[in-house]
Amino acid sequence: MLKLSDTSPAAGTGPTLSDAFSAVRAYSTALAAPLSVEDCAAQSMPDASPTKWHLAHTSWFFETFILERLEHGFKPFNPAFRILFNSYYNGIGEKFVRAQRGLLTRPSLQEVFAYRENVDRRILDLLERPSTQHQIAPLLQLGLHHEQQHQELIVTDAKHLLGINPLQPVYGLDFDSPKAAPGNLVWHEFPAEIVEIGHAEDGFCFDNETPKHRQFTETFSLASKLVTNAEYCAFIADGGYSKPEYWLSEGWDWIQANAIKHPLYWQRNGQQWLCFTLRGVKDLQPDQAVLHVSYYEAAAYAAWAGARLPTEAEWERAAKSEPALKQLFGTAWQWTSSAYAPYPGFAAAPGAVGEYNGKFMVNQYVLRGSSLATPASHARPTYRNFFPAGTRWQFSGIRLAR
Amino acid sequence: MLKLSDTSPAAGTGPTLSDAFSAVRAYSTALAAPLSVEDCAAQSMPDASPTKWHLAHTSWFFETFILERLEHGFKPFNPAFRILFNSYYNGIGEKFVRAQRGLLTRPSLQEVFAYRENVDRRILDLLERPSTQHQIAPLLQLGLHHEQQHQELIVTDAKHLLGINPLQPVYGLDFDSPKAAPGNLVWHEFPAEIVEIGHAEDGFCFDNETPKHRQFTETFSLASKLVTNAEYCAFIADGGYSKPEYWLSEGWDWIQANAIKHPLYWQRNGQQWLCFTLRGVKDLQPDQAVLHVSYYEAAAYAAWAGARLPTEAEWERAAKSEPALKQLFGTAWQWTSSAYAPYPGFAAAPGAVGEYNGKFMVNQYVLRGSSLATPASHARPTYRNFFPAGTRWQFSGIRLAR
Amino acid sequence: MLKLSDTSPAAGTGPTLSDAFSAVRAYSTALAAPLSVEDCAAQSMPDASPTKWHLAHTSWFFETFILERLEHGFKPFNPAFRILFNSYYNGIGEKFVRAQRGLLTRPSLQEVFAYRENVDRRILDLLERPSTQHQIAPLLQLGLHHEQQHQELIVTDAKHLLGINPLQPVYGLDFDSPKAAPGNLVWHEFPAEIVEIGHAEDGFCFDNETPKHRQFTETFSLASKLVTNAEYCAFIADGGYSKPEYWLSEGWDWIQANAIKHPLYWQRNGQQWLCFTLRGVKDLQPDQAVLHVSYYEAAAYAAWAGARLPTEAEWERAAKSEPALKQLFGTAWQWTSSAYAPYPGFAAAPGAVGEYNGKFMVNQYVLRGSSLATPASHARPTYRNFFPAGTRWQFSGIRLAR
Amino acid sequence: MLKLSDTSPAAGTGPTLSDAFSAVRAYSTALAAPLSVEDCAAQSMPDASPTKWHLAHTSWFFETFILERLEHGFKPFNPAFRILFNSYYNGIGEKFVRAQRGLLTRPSLQEVFAYRENVDRRILDLLERPSTQHQIAPLLQLGLHHEQQHQELIVTDAKHLLGINPLQPVYGLDFDSPKAAPGNLVWHEFPAEIVEIGHAEDGFCFDNETPKHRQFTETFSLASKLVTNAEYCAFIADGGYSKPEYWLSEGWDWIQANAIKHPLYWQRNGQQWLCFTLRGVKDLQPDQAVLHVSYYEAAAYAAWAGARLPTEAEWERAAKSEPALKQLFGTAWQWTSSAYAPYPGFAAAPGAVGEYNGKFMVNQYVLRGSSLATPASHARPTYRNFFPAGTRWQFSGIRLAR
Repeated sequence: MLKLSDTSPAAGTGPTLSDAFSAVRAYSTALAAPLSVEDCAAQSMPDASPTKWHLAHTSWFFETFILERLEHGFKPFNPAFRILFNSYYNGIGEKFVRAQRGLLTRPSLQEVFAYRENVDRRILDLLERPSTQHQIAPLLQLGLHHEQQHQELIVTDAKHLLGINPLQPVYGLDFDSPKAAPGNLVWHEFPAEIVEIGHAEDGFCFDNETPKHRQFTETFSLASKLVTNAEYCAFIADGGYSKPEYWLSEGWDWIQANAIKHPLYWQRNGQQWLCFTLRGVKDLQPDQAVLHVSYYEAAAYAAWAGARLPTEAEWERAAKSEPALKQLFGTAWQWTSSAYAPYPGFAAAPGAVGEYNGKFMVNQYVLRGSSLATPASHARPTYRNFFPAGTRWQFSGIRLAR
Repeated sequence: MLKLSDTSPAAGTGPTLSDAFSAVRAYSTALAAPLSVEDCAAQSMPDASPTKWHLAHTSWFFETFILERLEHGFKPFNPAFRILFNSYYNGIGEKFVRAQRGLLTRPSLQEVFAYRENVDRRILDLLERPSTQHQIAPLLQLGLHHEQQHQELIVTDAKHLLGINPLQPVYGLDFDSPKAAPGNLVWHEFPAEIVEIGHAEDGFCFDNETPKHRQFTETFSLASKLVTNAEYCAFIADGGYSKPEYWLSEGWDWIQANAIKHPLYWQRNGQQWLCFTLRGVKDLQPDQAVLHVSYYEAAAYAAWAGARLPTEAEWERAAKSEPALKQLFGTAWQWTSSAYAPYPGFAAAPGAVGEYNGKFMVNQYVLRGSSLATPASHARPTYRNFFPAGTRWQFSGIRLAR
Repeated sequence: MLKLSDTSPAAGTGPTLSDAFSAVRAYSTALAAPLSVEDCAAQSMPDASPTKWHLAHTSWFFETFILERLEHGFKPFNPAFRILFNSYYNGIGEKFVRAQRGLLTRPSLQEVFAYRENVDRRILDLLERPSTQHQIAPLLQLGLHHEQQHQELIVTDAKHLLGINPLQPVYGLDFDSPKAAPGNLVWHEFPAEIVEIGHAEDGFCFDNETPKHRQFTETFSLASKLVTNAEYCAFIADGGYSKPEYWLSEGWDWIQANAIKHPLYWQRNGQQWLCFTLRGVKDLQPDQAVLHVSYYEAAAYAAWAGARLPTEAEWERAAKSEPALKQLFGTAWQWTSSAYAPYPGFAAAPGAVGEYNGKFMVNQYVLRGSSLATPASHARPTYRNFFPAGTRWQFSGIRLAR
Repeated sequence: MLKLSDTSPAAGTGPTLSDAFSAVRAYSTALAAPLSVEDCAAQSMPDASPTKWHLAHTSWFFETFILERLEHGFKPFNPAFRILFNSYYNGIGEKFVRAQRGLLTRPSLQEVFAYRENVDRRILDLLERPSTQHQIAPLLQLGLHHEQQHQELIVTDAKHLLGINPLQPVYGLDFDSPKAAPGNLVWHEFPAEIVEIGHAEDGFCFDNETPKHRQFTETFSLASKLVTNAEYCAFIADGGYSKPEYWLSEGWDWIQANAIKHPLYWQRNGQQWLCFTLRGVKDLQPDQAVLHVSYYEAAAYAAWAGARLPTEAEWERAAKSEPALKQLFGTAWQWTSSAYAPYPGFAAAPGAVGEYNGKFMVNQYVLRGSSLATPASHARPTYRNFFPAGTRWQFSGIRLAR
């Protein structure tokens, strides 16, 4: 949720905001371009959504929270879409069953593109009227950051869908092609200190990053880089998935119940590990960061390595202060040991838009940083991503602390 | 499965068989024509399959059971399709998970049409070679009747998918538009007698219709026509769904667990009943046959009406002998009280093709006749359709006996 | 359910009926004697019931269907028992949740014995009054046969409970100690014929054995004895549990889902088979009949052996006519290929007592004969036992036909 | 887990330790005394355990962690108990299936008492030998605190079992009889400060209370007493269970899925609320603390009341410093908003005993204080109890913060 006091330059001037809007909206369409009509319609599991649904829901967000409030003589593009593309906003009313989004063969992808264009045009019209500028800016920024979140989900959800297909089709994005390795592991030590946590600068943030507040962190060290595939292979080779002593009790039950023996998308080919990527099936790269691990696996790996996961306060403090740290952003979301909880003094915004974050603050764990699929302008040191402990289809990795 | 002794004229002469092949194959494509690419790809429940899958699987059947055996220098169109489009033939090998057929966004619908055309051409080539005529005819006939079964499923599965969509889209077929009512109900009485049951004539039949054998039927009466919507409404109005005395114990549990209060696709609009059809949502027609009821509902209705469901032997005897009976074919499959079981002396064919029928002879009930979605040439008095007792998405209705 | 026309001598005279009542009631108590208070209270699975519940429910049956109707100034022993010990009679009203019968730690076993004694005394009092003799006799006979059914369940349910316990305790009954082997296998042939099926003689029967009617059976042969453990071992050794070609499709799914590789209660000890019995863990006896197989396993074995299961009409015809057949009664219930269905003309009795049989006539298979745990006076050629196809905790075996 | 540095006087002297051991062991037996043999054997749900199991498992703890290590010539009382009564220690080996503890009708309650007496005697023997005093003291203390935890579970689990029984039997303990009301609600304010959290004093604590460390708490206020039944009734009367805006998203799903409309054990009797207690069904007392609420309900109530739940650091700071606070101990465990997580520097003990706490630190929430069923000597300001968010069968209540 947007802080209403947000006064970043980008939010203040018409043309810039229009440009940002057009650019973000175009990027969503670009992500869908390599996919077929059928790829865009299917839903591989309840946690994921069809690309078509993402494209429609992000438009619904602008239509419902901006056009419906501010457009003169507002008429919905299609009244049925109010229910069909509502994700979880009880304040807006009914919702279509989440697990059946892949059954919405109508509207067609083409109609959803028409919906997008209609919403785009009306938003851009609104932006040209100086009278509404003031009201529209904060909600528009929220909508754009919301759309960026769904852009990452388009990538992860499509990867999951294609990964189930025995034909193992190529998405065609190169987001996950190998990068230069980040050098040797160094442990950075941070002395005990009261630190400021949360968002304070100008510029956009979600409501869950506020209010800025103080936390005391004891002395700790943080790894300069993420755990690599080679390191994770050593854990597997040492019987990591068959020794309960490394695992949280619930994690141990989880790997038994789901017969899990390696990260998601790994395939064993004789003695060799392969990996399904956005570019198809490839050899596993030893020096690249391990991806697609759950919180349970991250915690078990850390226990095996004689370390632990950082708290989100430790991570944020380090990210704000320590330039020698590598792979903070753009490689993998990094599991922290912090349960997702409100900051002291947190209050959700009134109305439906307040359902954005607060109501999910239970039984989820915070991930920090950003991944290879996160739009670069979407990442910042105070950003709090969150998923249940068994989540693996996101680009999630491990940074150790001790 | 085809009886190998089958010597119907249609199976004997090249041109006719080629024509039949082309006609049946074209009809499948015609059924898919009103559907969008997305409609063809989605699977609304594990019991149903995507239209695209039906189109591919029926081609797979010809490729696997005919081309692979008889084509000189056989090469599969795509080796991966052997697994992807195998429905349930363990003798052929691995199968893709049934409940995930809707996730097969690749191959595309276009590729499946290419697959169909490729198989069609190769089958027609084979048919032009006199040397293979003899071997191909019985399997080809089996394949065509198999495809006709899937033609009905294309209709029922697409209806189910569209019926879940809050937009309630129109399929565009008019199969279920109202027909002239079949006159007043008459009870036809049949004296006790040994009768011959099963297929004996020339012409195609499935293996489960054989061998012809004798059964003794006690005196019984059969209703001249199917139970109507108006009659079924009276059952509902009388509290039929809330009185356990009419229900099989398992049926009572089933309506509780699924909160069932009326046939599938019915919608209450105040005091009036509407019904989702292939032509969209329409008023329920009182004098038309009730459709989309389960075995449990059919048995409960019969108990309420002071009657019972016929056995399949009773139905077949009547269908063979009594011209005054109406709606035997072309309106709705008619639940019988007979569990699906092998006829005395039944033996499945050797090999994978023998998995066609026999292995399903447990915990299913036989339906007789044919429905509005059954190709007319596919129906006959000895035909045995079968589904579990809770099945409703087929065009299934009720004929009473006593 | 009792036929009301029943006029067997036993039902006609007071003293004899009292004696029968006392003897049957005492036998239930005797079956519970080797069990501890805790054994009597636990429920090992939803299909089974605690011994204590069986002891109470059989008393409830007499109290509800006889005392409540015929006793002058009837007052229930405990009004709460009406719900607690109602098994499935919707006509009587509410029922306690079946799967939670093991949680009814109150009333205590001692109180249930007091309940039994109270009901016994009041029934015997009633029997001494000539005025009610006429009305009570048929219901009392029904109640006694009902209690005999629960006597068998006491044995099978307690065996199941003890079998789960790693201490593998001894029940202490010797019902299943080895018997003399029934000689060599002989195939008895029966010519095609119209036969009378169902109960016609004087004496008690359940409503599902009526009305007597005619069926035509084609020529068939029946094995003189049951399949032995040694024969079943040969099936296992030949890979019977890993070859789908022998299995019904649903049976194949069932063995996969439940990881089933042998009959219930078998344990492999190196190269040897052991078996949990009422007398503890014993060596498997090769020449004894195989016990505790499901319908799926029986059908798979028959397919492997090149035979099939008999229909219930075939079984009944043979049992009525052919003295050379062995092990018809007293060893194991014998799966037939017949789904449990009403005989032509069947009608359940009016009122709650009519729920006894008819409402279960779906998705169950008929077993014929009787088992080592069936009271001898409870068995007859027309008796129809029935269970779902996956049932194994009963003493169920295999007689082949062809 | 015990801190090995523990040097409390109680741990240092033989006689005192023996006395403490005998007293704690006798109290478990006393809690079981009002229950019948059958009550002691049943398990009402997987989260609960039979009383008999608690009595055996606590003995198993002493036998496994003390006698097996320190007793000369150790022989197990019964080798099978090592598996049967292992709760969750993977380091010890196999475990009996948790959800089936109620099926262990053997050993009998009598045998379990014999097991207890045997273990008691051998422990007391050990305690008389000065040579082992030093080694035994810390483990014995751990075992006694472990037994006290199970003493509370005996009460909550038996209450749950009896509460399911329609006879609603009386346990007979008076732990939950009404207490004098704690006066008016006062809000105590605490200024922002770095505070020491965790256990530091002499005396026993579990490993999860260590190490002592610093946390910064912002300014907050804490309610002087717990939320009352009358206050919670106002929440219900205001539609609290039907307004999603008060609920965590997961909590909202949870009340829908489980049809929850009030705390556990409440029953509506017309306009009045009744409540099942250890003393049977009683009128709900308006001025008593609300009991048996889940984390979801506690959080929803707090949101409705314009407040929030305290963090565990806030609670501990207040409990250590502020004598005006009421009902900290002995009424109800108090949900905090803190997920159960390791303190900075936490390390579990090596070996099986280290499985006591650390492996459960995921997806659970910390409760502070103690309840009416907690042995008084078991409570302290640093104590961390923990349960999943949907837990209600514990005596759990609400203290508000803001």
